[in-house]
Amino acid sequence: MEFQELIRKRYSVRVYAPRPVEEEKLARVLEAARLTPTACNLQPFRIVVLQTKGREDELRRIYGREWFVQAPLVLAICALTAESWVRKYDGWNSAEVDATIAMDHLILAAAEEGLGTCWIAAFNPAAAREILGLPADVVPVAFTPLGYPADSPSPKKRRPTTDLVRRDRW
Amino acid sequence: MEFQELIRKRYSVRVYAPRPVEEEKLARVLEAARLTPTACNLQPFRIVVLQTKGREDELRRIYGREWFVQAPLVLAICALTAESWVRKYDGWNSAEVDATIAMDHLILAAAEEGLGTCWIAAFNPAAAREILGLPADVVPVAFTPLGYPADSPSPKKRRPTTDLVRRDRW
Repeated sequence: MEFQELIRKRYSVRVYAPRPVEEEKLARVLEAARLTPTACNLQPFRIVVLQTKGREDELRRIYGREWFVQAPLVLAICALTAESWVRKYDGWNSAEVDATIAMDHLILAAAEEGLGTCWIAAFNPAAAREILGLPADVVPVAFTPLGYPADSPSPKKRRPTTDLVRRDRW
Repeated sequence: MEFQELIRKRYSVRVYAPRPVEEEKLARVLEAARLTPTACNLQPFRIVVLQTKGREDELRRIYGREWFVQAPLVLAICALTAESWVRKYDGWNSAEVDATIAMDHLILAAAEEGLGTCWIAAFNPAAAREILGLPADVVPVAFTPLGYPADSPSPKKRRPTTDLVRRDRW
């Protein structure tokens, strides 16, 4: 669908149907993340695809809401801080931004497939590190369930453009 | 167009035509950013729309490549670190991620309009702060020109999915 329609259709899904995600749909979602533009094309992110079945208790330690483990899959987007671009002026590291772009591609591609996601930043980072087995220089940036929605979107509430956009200077 | 087509079509434009951007196209690009999902819907980002004409020397201090000021517009995406969500576990601040999602929406919406962008992280942060007049708690996250492309895309080079995706744990 048109991009303007897609971003209106995407919403944070918090009830998931007990229905598996087809491998070909998952593949297209991951392919969208793979095509992410990253600083100097270094692609300093990795996606961990987790099956929820049988791991519910463990995953609930990462994020406690019941719907988190209701979807068949949970995806973790991780940033590789040791493989990313660093800005010479101030040492700023691009890894988190690069991983965020991948996550955005992923949730939008999922919406186009009719799949639901919910961008979760409020996870427990220590539990995530332990359960995923992350090395010290790998930062978990976001989690999302991936599955078929079983709820309905609410109307989007956003500030008006005049609040968000300035002209010519701050 | 379909999202999978859109992300293949988008590329980093580094030559711009001397052609103005229609106000209605700019409005749709900014509207896509406005609809960005952000942590707790706090929308802690602002977009500064800069006319390049007459400000070339000043803008070149932010980013020195000639094509940066070739487009009629430059957009700056800024994160409001004092108005963003903070994770209770570790004090992580969502502002940069939220601003990044807005930037991703913006460049994809621009591509759908036939407009070119180039995500620039390699700007001079001190010059950006001075020239835009940013308060201390406002962080410039990315810049992009916005205009009509006058170059052609190269084929995208990306690592294979097997490099980027892991199953069940790190």
